[in-house]
Amino acid sequence: MRVAVLFSGGKDSSLSAFLMSPHFEVTLVTATFGIEENWRVAKEVARILGYPYEVLKMDEEILEEAVEMMIRDGNTRKGFTEIHKKVIEEVSKRFSVIVDGIRRDDISPKLTLDEIRSLESRLDIHYITPLMGFSRKTVNLMTRRYFEIEEGNNLYTSDYEFEVRSYMRDRGVDPSIVFPKNHVQSIVRARKDGYGQEDAWKKVEISESI
Amino acid sequence: MRVAVLFSGGKDSSLSAFLMSPHFEVTLVTATFGIEENWRVAKEVARILGYPYEVLKMDEEILEEAVEMMIRDGNTRKGFTEIHKKVIEEVSKRFSVIVDGIRRDDISPKLTLDEIRSLESRLDIHYITPLMGFSRKTVNLMTRRYFEIEEGNNLYTSDYEFEVRSYMRDRGVDPSIVFPKNHVQSIVRARKDGYGQEDAWKKVEISESI
Repeated sequence: MRVAVLFSGGKDSSLSAFLMSPHFEVTLVTATFGIEENWRVAKEVARILGYPYEVLKMDEEILEEAVEMMIRDGNTRKGFTEIHKKVIEEVSKRFSVIVDGIRRDDISPKLTLDEIRSLESRLDIHYITPLMGFSRKTVNLMTRRYFEIEEGNNLYTSDYEFEVRSYMRDRGVDPSIVFPKNHVQSIVRARKDGYGQEDAWKKVEISESI
Repeated sequence: MRVAVLFSGGKDSSLSAFLMSPHFEVTLVTATFGIEENWRVAKEVARILGYPYEVLKMDEEILEEAVEMMIRDGNTRKGFTEIHKKVIEEVSKRFSVIVDGIRRDDISPKLTLDEIRSLESRLDIHYITPLMGFSRKTVNLMTRRYFEIEEGNNLYTSDYEFEVRSYMRDRGVDPSIVFPKNHVQSIVRARKDGYGQEDAWKKVEISESI
């Protein structure tokens, strides 16, 4: 069964793909509004991880409306949630299982349980957030074993944030009026040897003979 | 790295073990207060799934206090949460990563995010709930592929509930004064062919050559 993993090239969405790949046929999907080519970062990470990759072109109007909302609200929360819902809706046209790498203690806005149920029922999809039961500390424990990771503020990443900032600047709006100052992002740069899954898999195989 | 999966022999804790086993060395652990031998159900499922299994003897005083709490409250919520915290504390003496199969839409009481953070920091553990980002529908989609499952009310299962009911009856208390009428439980009875993980793993292996 095919699943789309919403993919930024960061450690959370990469680990989500790892968690799902023994159970589903994973395709990594990055949304873009077509005003920047930052999705290419995610495409390179997809190549490193070895999963099929697709870039999904979203209507620029969605970005426009979300940015207006962010400026009106003085923060990015509702705007990002709106973008996120539209992306899920678009992805649902071709995938019936959608995987989102949001973490238990993520500072990014989360869909509420009611919003999730409404999306699942309206779009007839399974929406899975495999890291919702993991802390940042646990994600770090696992991703350190699998990936070489670059972390920092304002990295050139493939998440929505980059295009939102760029769109704002093009219209003479200073992104810092809505964005929090510190938002550490990550990009997976390489896969480590000793990947781990292989050994674990062998163990399960052997135990079949019990 | 070793992890303890809190294990009832039901589909949720079985799927949790499947999700974690490519990443950690899984041991299935069932707590008992020693007044019933219902943990043997979980032991048999552990054998079927092929994981190491341990039964953990808990002090009967904990059960006594929890049952008093349930009777006082007229429901089982706080009592089960108290048992659950004590079990996690006991397991943490030998495992630094503890996996709990609770689901996003589980009717069983969940630890709050604050309670989880407090436990993780006080006991110096990683507490993972791998199904917290999965709906019941999604869990069913996955477990149907992997397991033959028996489902029903009041099954002879290895969860805390069975011993709590038994303890109450022994003291002349009718369990129905605190338990909800309908609580569908599940027991994994067999592993299906076409297990799935093997194929998926091969796919990831092949893609390494990209």
